[in-house]
Amino acid sequence: MRPRAVAVLASGHGSNLEALVHAQARAPYRVRLVIADRECRALAWARARGLDARLVPPGPHADATQLCAMRDAGVGAVALAGYLRRLSPAFLAGFAGPVLNIHPSLLPSFPGLHAHRQAIAHGVKVTGVTIHFVDEGLDSGPILLQEAVAVREGETPDELLERLHAVEHRLYPQALTIVVEGRYATSGRQVSILPPREE
Amino acid sequence: MRPRAVAVLASGHGSNLEALVHAQARAPYRVRLVIADRECRALAWARARGLDARLVPPGPHADATQLCAMRDAGVGAVALAGYLRRLSPAFLAGFAGPVLNIHPSLLPSFPGLHAHRQAIAHGVKVTGVTIHFVDEGLDSGPILLQEAVAVREGETPDELLERLHAVEHRLYPQALTIVVEGRYATSGRQVSILPPREE
Repeated sequence: MRPRAVAVLASGHGSNLEALVHAQARAPYRVRLVIADRECRALAWARARGLDARLVPPGPHADATQLCAMRDAGVGAVALAGYLRRLSPAFLAGFAGPVLNIHPSLLPSFPGLHAHRQAIAHGVKVTGVTIHFVDEGLDSGPILLQEAVAVREGETPDELLERLHAVEHRLYPQALTIVVEGRYATSGRQVSILPPREE
Repeated sequence: MRPRAVAVLASGHGSNLEALVHAQARAPYRVRLVIADRECRALAWARARGLDARLVPPGPHADATQLCAMRDAGVGAVALAGYLRRLSPAFLAGFAGPVLNIHPSLLPSFPGLHAHRQAIAHGVKVTGVTIHFVDEGLDSGPILLQEAVAVREGETPDELLERLHAVEHRLYPQALTIVVEGRYATSGRQVSILPPREE
């Protein structure tokens, strides 16, 4: 199968962007477009790597600019990687493909910012990572993959976040692979993962 | 250490009551009192086993009746096992020891009834079991133990519930052991588990 073009949207450090790009040589997708809503390390990293990297600040034409760039790059799926802006209904209606997000908690626990700090403040003993399809809510779309991470006794939020990141960087390429291969079926909120096709 | 007397409060089948009693020969607690708010299998099972088993239906003197029975039995800790009634502020104020509850989800996800069905309806890929201290809220108290359980592809709610029960029956005796040994420290919502004391 010819690799499928995907876009990554980022706002910050971009460690998940890096993980997706590093894994793509052994995966059926290629990151053909990186979009950021602000100047950030992710954008600088993408430029330095020679990727098609665009700054699209918020504004009346931001959705159209993003959609045009995605169409021109032949993008079939989008992965959010620390993208801090909620996608607009116009963007979600204008892009026909799947849009994934990754979140450092076991949703529906701890949606929103600083989920790892929320988890420690709540005193949970198990948290984790969620990869879900994006809808118009906040971290509310149907769940594709989750993996649990046990909180360690006396661990700081930063230590926990590092361990969550390690899981994220392994899980996100797996999720994007499943999505570009079309190996999933949704029924309401339920997402089933289908076995790989026979070659 | 002499075993500590505990009470179990139940309303239904009582499978966690059974698990606690079966484990107690190798644990530092003894179930000296079983209280139910209605006639139920848990109460019948406790009676058949010769345990001190009391029916305390709701009513103006229910709290006092429970507290007196617990005092007379020398109860130092309480474990709720499918007890469907919220504990009153008067009960919680009148009993000085710890009160544990067990819940078939990774709280704060899916508080309330039928947590396993809520989890499947939400489409999560990971759920689990939580043992927490009881406060006046609904499944909201500080968390002592949690263990993750992966939801299997195509699993029915009943199949998931069976697997959650298996984890509950292993985890609850561990939790009650930690509590009667005083091997925990709380700071706000954070509960630290302390290592066993040297003999």
